[in-house]
Amino acid sequence: MKDDNVYIYGKNPIFEYIKKKPHRINKIFIKDDASSTLFKELKFHISETNIQLSTVPLSKLNRMAGRDALHQGVVAEISPVTYLLPTEWLDGLADDSHELLVIIDSMQDPHNFGAIIRTAVAAGASAILIGSRDQVQVNGTVIKTSSGLAEDIPIIRAQNLNQAIRLYKDAGFELTGTVMSGSVQFTDWQPANRSAIIIGSEGHGMRKSVETMCDALLSIPMVASVESLNASVTAALMLYEWRRKQ
Amino acid sequence: MKDDNVYIYGKNPIFEYIKKKPHRINKIFIKDDASSTLFKELKFHISETNIQLSTVPLSKLNRMAGRDALHQGVVAEISPVTYLLPTEWLDGLADDSHELLVIIDSMQDPHNFGAIIRTAVAAGASAILIGSRDQVQVNGTVIKTSSGLAEDIPIIRAQNLNQAIRLYKDAGFELTGTVMSGSVQFTDWQPANRSAIIIGSEGHGMRKSVETMCDALLSIPMVASVESLNASVTAALMLYEWRRKQ
Repeated sequence: MKDDNVYIYGKNPIFEYIKKKPHRINKIFIKDDASSTLFKELKFHISETNIQLSTVPLSKLNRMAGRDALHQGVVAEISPVTYLLPTEWLDGLADDSHELLVIIDSMQDPHNFGAIIRTAVAAGASAILIGSRDQVQVNGTVIKTSSGLAEDIPIIRAQNLNQAIRLYKDAGFELTGTVMSGSVQFTDWQPANRSAIIIGSEGHGMRKSVETMCDALLSIPMVASVESLNASVTAALMLYEWRRKQ
Repeated sequence: MKDDNVYIYGKNPIFEYIKKKPHRINKIFIKDDASSTLFKELKFHISETNIQLSTVPLSKLNRMAGRDALHQGVVAEISPVTYLLPTEWLDGLADDSHELLVIIDSMQDPHNFGAIIRTAVAAGASAILIGSRDQVQVNGTVIKTSSGLAEDIPIIRAQNLNQAIRLYKDAGFELTGTVMSGSVQFTDWQPANRSAIIIGSEGHGMRKSVETMCDALLSIPMVASVESLNASVTAALMLYEWRRKQ
């Protein structure tokens, strides 16, 4: 499999990068038998950031850093985009602005994520919110499947996704999700001035903790034999429904 | 790459299969230095069918048939579904029935094709029409990305796609395509009782020869920096627009 991602490696280059551009790091990988000293050092450096650590076998580090690279057991995947902090985006909004925020809840598939970014830009959404855990970050594959559009929309990253969702809810965003059992059809949706739609992962949908925060749960009608739609299809229908109502 | 397709191989087994179940064969592969006798024999056997021949290197045949298989230079990919002939589906329709036919024009990507099948079944479309040339057939990857739904909708296969489109147009199907420059927005579409939507390939859209047959060309509004939507997203918006108007 071709890997379109960009990596940096070695302790000091990575510590420097964390200090200067924490919002450009997708994830840091350390070897699974790393010394507790290295682990603690890294934990210390990322403590004020949204960056996740992940332990992987040495062979994976070698593959990411390239043959013969002196990675010292640590490799960082660099994002092609700079993530915003949840408050950063919110603080920039005008009081009476119309916004559509697309919240992605724990999506693993980079193709689905990229496809959603592409449609979100096309439909005129304001921003995309993701978590830094259990979520594919913006990497080379995501950029490709977004047709390069990931740079055309603010991407907000939260260390704690539920907290960020709560923040937006408190700021007047109406949270709308889709579920099989939704009592209102998506075609009857009347979006608020500040709307947020939540797109769950393929297969699992959104987490219960997110669903309970929703102000509205809509359904997309389906022939009975079908259990669900692809996440990027659900996103497209919701995004264009929002656009239609503007 | 894992190959989920089913293959049969060897001259006589394939000749038998062509005779008995021509609508279950996706494609026949022969080695690129095959004797003209084998080539002519195959041409003769498929002459009355919609099956395409394709020449490939010996190594590809070996991979498809499996190690040590005595394939005699010829391998057939078997479809998980039975294709209908264009007339066969048409002859089964009631005179005043409401139908939505989804026409796929020269799509190569099995993931997009599978995703469209899934949404077509969910939205309640009547059938899907594909060509046998320049078109990914229903294979293992398509079945997987359709969530197994490819067996829940008739799939019609035409040797000559344009001829089949003309056949449906003459039978009262209103042909609707989407183009960047469409003068009517898709949300203003009023589908006829017998409707057909045409989904072009990713990147190329539908062919000019198909576009000129269209009764209506619709546009999907997009932010200016975006050139096009993913084919499965376009299909989803059109399919649910049709459903909304029923």
